[in-house]
Amino acid sequence: MKLIYQGKTKDVYQLEDGNYLLKFKDDMTGENGVFDPGANTVGLTVEGAGKAGLKLTKMFFEKLRDEGIPTHYIDCNIEEATMKVKPATLFGNGLEVICRFRAVGSFIRRYGMYAKEGQPLDSFVEVTLKDDARQDPPISEDALHMLGILTREEYKILKDLTIKISNIIKDELAKKGIELYDIKLEFGRIGEDKHIALIDEISGGNMRAYKDGKYIEPLELEKLLVN
Amino acid sequence: MKLIYQGKTKDVYQLEDGNYLLKFKDDMTGENGVFDPGANTVGLTVEGAGKAGLKLTKMFFEKLRDEGIPTHYIDCNIEEATMKVKPATLFGNGLEVICRFRAVGSFIRRYGMYAKEGQPLDSFVEVTLKDDARQDPPISEDALHMLGILTREEYKILKDLTIKISNIIKDELAKKGIELYDIKLEFGRIGEDKHIALIDEISGGNMRAYKDGKYIEPLELEKLLVN
Repeated sequence: MKLIYQGKTKDVYQLEDGNYLLKFKDDMTGENGVFDPGANTVGLTVEGAGKAGLKLTKMFFEKLRDEGIPTHYIDCNIEEATMKVKPATLFGNGLEVICRFRAVGSFIRRYGMYAKEGQPLDSFVEVTLKDDARQDPPISEDALHMLGILTREEYKILKDLTIKISNIIKDELAKKGIELYDIKLEFGRIGEDKHIALIDEISGGNMRAYKDGKYIEPLELEKLLVN
Repeated sequence: MKLIYQGKTKDVYQLEDGNYLLKFKDDMTGENGVFDPGANTVGLTVEGAGKAGLKLTKMFFEKLRDEGIPTHYIDCNIEEATMKVKPATLFGNGLEVICRFRAVGSFIRRYGMYAKEGQPLDSFVEVTLKDDARQDPPISEDALHMLGILTREEYKILKDLTIKISNIIKDELAKKGIELYDIKLEFGRIGEDKHIALIDEISGGNMRAYKDGKYIEPLELEKLLVN
């Protein structure tokens, strides 16, 4: 097993069977000790954060498997905070696909002239480039297509899958009286047919969730959802 | 005649016949005395800049009229640096529609991971909100539609008109050996049928033009094109 990539919150190992092992770390994105799902830096380290993130990821990826949604998930080992996944190729150097149910965060920073903080949005999808140096810029379908990052057919699948997956997660949270405001997903191409599948993780670090109008921190969310 | 709006480079007067008069000023956008077509501040004042901008605008709007493209243009008075236009309503508080033939400026600042400075782009269209406080953020068709700024049908017309108009201007410049890299247009709804028409101006301040690989300043461009 060979370490091939060290990420902000996960390390990636290549396995001898051709699959990969993701090791969830206790580092969380943010700044100066404050968690921020959109941040490009590690802001804090919390013991047990990796394991908690993996528990939630396992729950959601197994739920998606039951619903017939393609993902890279094979299985996981909670004790070791590792998840075994299929190999995937990224779109370009990676995209983040955001689905919004309420207007908060970067949406308001960009479109605050036309939207009120917290106003409902109907599964609104937008794509940003993973590019720390350029602050993850938003990118249109036309630009994605023109720059050869994905085809128009792939964009349509990506958008449809994003809406489907985000609504499944929203419904799961709603069962515990929690409201999903927005969520950030990553996709890749998997297998010989290069079908589009959800990759990376789905944990508190990928979403903004609220209960009774109050924001829930990722670790708190994981406690509320996994028991 | 009543002054109703003072812009960075133009003032707007309402006429008694229901039309409007645009007075072109000698102020140009930029910072610290350096012209920048994308800037949100007045950076310099050059005697004759208003008149030169109007001459080019007149030339292009009359060319577009000959080609059957809808615009707000009625006529103009070069001596007084004024242009008479039809009343138009904006999309939201105003959009800028950019057509790119080569990758420069904000395109490279956002998508430099995937594009090289100066690489050819095939009439690539993008839309930004006119919102100085939020640095004119780019916005997708989905967001424009969702926020009620324009309909999907209007977006299609806007995009098609932008490609058509930009290529007419590109061809005009090419006749003098000048290459158009990008151009910024504004549109509004005109008349009882609310048809989409080009508004504002088309001058050196709206575009980046190059000759023999060298950038041409707006006033120089106006000299080269209007004789």
